[in-house]
Amino acid sequence: MLPFSRVTIIGLGLIGSSIARAARRQMPTVRLTGHDADAEVRATATALGLCDDVSDTPGAAVTHADLVILCVPVGAMDQVARAIAEDLPAEAVVSDVGSSKAGVLAALQAALPGATIVPAHPVAGTERSGPEAGFASLFRGRWCILTPPDGADGAAVQRVAEFWRRLGAQIETMAPDHHDRVLAITSHLPHLIAYTIVGTASDMEEITRSEVIKYSAGGFRDFTRIAASDPTMWRDVFLSNKDAVLDMLQRFSEDLSALQRAIRWGKGDELHDLFTRTRAIRRSIVEQGQDDPAPDFGRSHE
Amino acid sequence: MLPFSRVTIIGLGLIGSSIARAARRQMPTVRLTGHDADAEVRATATALGLCDDVSDTPGAAVTHADLVILCVPVGAMDQVARAIAEDLPAEAVVSDVGSSKAGVLAALQAALPGATIVPAHPVAGTERSGPEAGFASLFRGRWCILTPPDGADGAAVQRVAEFWRRLGAQIETMAPDHHDRVLAITSHLPHLIAYTIVGTASDMEEITRSEVIKYSAGGFRDFTRIAASDPTMWRDVFLSNKDAVLDMLQRFSEDLSALQRAIRWGKGDELHDLFTRTRAIRRSIVEQGQDDPAPDFGRSHE
Repeated sequence: MLPFSRVTIIGLGLIGSSIARAARRQMPTVRLTGHDADAEVRATATALGLCDDVSDTPGAAVTHADLVILCVPVGAMDQVARAIAEDLPAEAVVSDVGSSKAGVLAALQAALPGATIVPAHPVAGTERSGPEAGFASLFRGRWCILTPPDGADGAAVQRVAEFWRRLGAQIETMAPDHHDRVLAITSHLPHLIAYTIVGTASDMEEITRSEVIKYSAGGFRDFTRIAASDPTMWRDVFLSNKDAVLDMLQRFSEDLSALQRAIRWGKGDELHDLFTRTRAIRRSIVEQGQDDPAPDFGRSHE
Repeated sequence: MLPFSRVTIIGLGLIGSSIARAARRQMPTVRLTGHDADAEVRATATALGLCDDVSDTPGAAVTHADLVILCVPVGAMDQVARAIAEDLPAEAVVSDVGSSKAGVLAALQAALPGATIVPAHPVAGTERSGPEAGFASLFRGRWCILTPPDGADGAAVQRVAEFWRRLGAQIETMAPDHHDRVLAITSHLPHLIAYTIVGTASDMEEITRSEVIKYSAGGFRDFTRIAASDPTMWRDVFLSNKDAVLDMLQRFSEDLSALQRAIRWGKGDELHDLFTRTRAIRRSIVEQGQDDPAPDFGRSHE
């Protein structure tokens, strides 16, 4: 049985449009309604046929929904939730795809008192943005984390889980605070560091932009991919998951200082020990299907 | 005309074995001799037919060479150069593929007085190591940087450049010190940071290894690839390019502190400005053929 039959997606960027495409492929009888605050995105979504309907307002988009998924930057969740509050059907389940969860849950609960809220975070994406960047297989094999509030409706949680399973994801459930700490280290800190080093390289006085680009295959280019991610989405993530991000950053800085000291004093054994230890984790990630087994991410060398 | 006809490769790991494979494909008449300090690697190289001959000692390997390429960790260059000094033909050109150049050049000049030395650094690689990890197209489209010493034999420099062009590389020439600063930011610092964050994530008390692996698709997995690189090679790079690495690390730490402060005080505009600026550099790298144009490095999502 289908977990939901009338699904509304608010925000038709990379993630929202990928949900639409995956739902269309995996649950073709589901009626899909979409909305985006940007008229140009709405026009593109219509032209691409991403949804059965594209509504001009968030309120109109949710009127007939049994599942509403908010796919907007986490800093915009509050505003969007307020905009749908009046038109939201009583029996609808509200979910989202935000990268931080405690702040979003609090915002949704405040804006939608009495609504059934089951926050979710599909840990998937690319560096691209917008309705044309999405694709149906984005969630396949990836994990989708549900962070239902205390006392959440168990049946609603199960239906949201089933929805994501049908899109190809694996499901895990955890408390919002724990989610925010786990993702701070596996996603938010990596992005912060990538943005920083790309900024540092761009600002070198005696090394030209052209040199940075030409010799980026030495490692730097990997960081530029992540640092090409959506600026608004990531600004919001760092501001909304501030405490966990600052804590992870502190730990990272301490570890970096230790390595700096090891280099300064020529402690080769310390370096070699760490570099050996870090090798194993890559193997586990590949073994568990969370990255391409081919060398160099499977990049083409021909 | 072939730039060299009898090429000896000392060190048959990822880079050495890729040179052998590329030379075999692009210059089939060149006589290839190989040597590796590890008997098991020599046996594998023989079994794979990487070279025409695999010698048991570095001295025997160079006896008939007109080009000797040292493909060993930069910390081992000195020792290998001393080991070939007695048997090196007077007319042979000595080159290497080390990731740092000033220290290597000094070591080679001290160990091989009077020899024609043209150091090189092909900016290419993968996270894999060993003779089975190499492939013929590794250098295609990548840059190979030559750092000839002052007063170097111009004809020898041209021949080494032509050799690398035939392997598919583009050639640039610069002073060893400048090379070391450019590569410190485009290669060495990215590796150092990747090793650090993978270490930080492994050491979290309340977040399990399994969680780090499951949710690594949020960004972390990208760093694990680089952090799976050869520990000995990278230990040597950091120790031999200490000054430039420490300087870049200092700049990076300052920039990271500025971002940390922006997060703590909720300065969203500062974050957004940086995140917008960093997007452009990715585009240039892809436009100049230095990375896969497909999203997500072209990873398979099916």
